[in-house]
Amino acid sequence: MIFSSSLLENAVTEFAKLPGIGKKTALRLVLHLIKQDVDEVSNFSHVISSMRSEIKFCSRCHNISDTHICNICSNTSRKQDIICVVENIRDVIAIESTQQFNGLYHVLGGIISPLDGIGPDQLTIDSLVSRLEKEDINEIIFALNANIQGDTTIYYIGKKLKHLPVKITTIARGIAFGGELEYADEMTLAKSISNRIPVENYITTGN
Amino acid sequence: MIFSSSLLENAVTEFAKLPGIGKKTALRLVLHLIKQDVDEVSNFSHVISSMRSEIKFCSRCHNISDTHICNICSNTSRKQDIICVVENIRDVIAIESTQQFNGLYHVLGGIISPLDGIGPDQLTIDSLVSRLEKEDINEIIFALNANIQGDTTIYYIGKKLKHLPVKITTIARGIAFGGELEYADEMTLAKSISNRIPVENYITTGN
Repeated sequence: MIFSSSLLENAVTEFAKLPGIGKKTALRLVLHLIKQDVDEVSNFSHVISSMRSEIKFCSRCHNISDTHICNICSNTSRKQDIICVVENIRDVIAIESTQQFNGLYHVLGGIISPLDGIGPDQLTIDSLVSRLEKEDINEIIFALNANIQGDTTIYYIGKKLKHLPVKITTIARGIAFGGELEYADEMTLAKSISNRIPVENYITTGN
Repeated sequence: MIFSSSLLENAVTEFAKLPGIGKKTALRLVLHLIKQDVDEVSNFSHVISSMRSEIKFCSRCHNISDTHICNICSNTSRKQDIICVVENIRDVIAIESTQQFNGLYHVLGGIISPLDGIGPDQLTIDSLVSRLEKEDINEIIFALNANIQGDTTIYYIGKKLKHLPVKITTIARGIAFGGELEYADEMTLAKSISNRIPVENYITTGN
């Protein structure tokens, strides 16, 4: 693409650095911004840059936060004795959006994956162990992706927690609501049979 | 989506205002920016906001520009007697990127479309007519989309220019290079036959 304006070209180049945004999409976005008020665009860029410079990570659960301790950790109406362990911030948002979990979180910051060079030391596992040693936690729920890396991470952390009197659970695997049996993979279908649940529980869950 | 950080939420909301960017994509972009250096993100937002506040429109051709008169108009090595009339800035970028046109432009800022409430007065048609009256122009090329609005605009401007000794042309319509005859619409195929060109011209064009 050949631009006659370097202001335009630089803005397109900046947008095109974002993941999944090509040159053509970037141009579309910039031409959209040109049609907006100067104040609106200056607000856009102010919100983005102050977000980046002011954002913090909660020193307790490592979730993204506006303050030293995040909203979730400092909310005393939440159950303080149950921790949901997730891979990243996106998982916290996904679980919060269900409005079904009222405990605390612990964000690992990744998952054990030797092939990608990610070992336990790069994750917040030590911080989780010391939380469990200090705080009065009854249960931790692993909400990790169901693959080898997720299982390895659960196994590794499980071993580290052996000496602590904490109940360790993982989210249920099975056929999704609305999912069709015939299209489910064999592993999921097999697990959904071996981990079957009483119908009275199912009806409660389904509501 | 439920966010535990309002900095994050505001940034996602701002990105999601952009056309074609939903909440999920906006979150992905913001989480990407969080992983970048503070300086990089502050540069991103500075480039965007200064682009918006400093960008101008060329007072001669109405193309987007860093200065009062754009790069293309002020480039004396370009032919000063031929003007390509286009609908918008995007078309200038598309034609410039072919590196096949060495004249000047005139950006109409839209196309005559009564159904959308766009009449000739909202476009830069008067400015085009006065350019043609003042400057020494030999030819204007219409590079507009081939539809009723484009044809109406050509017809309207053509009538306004009747008193001026200027050659009026339009870009060629036909089967695209690499396009298959059997999939072309009838109108294009019919026009490509009635406006056929000598093979010697075709070979020059094709190179």
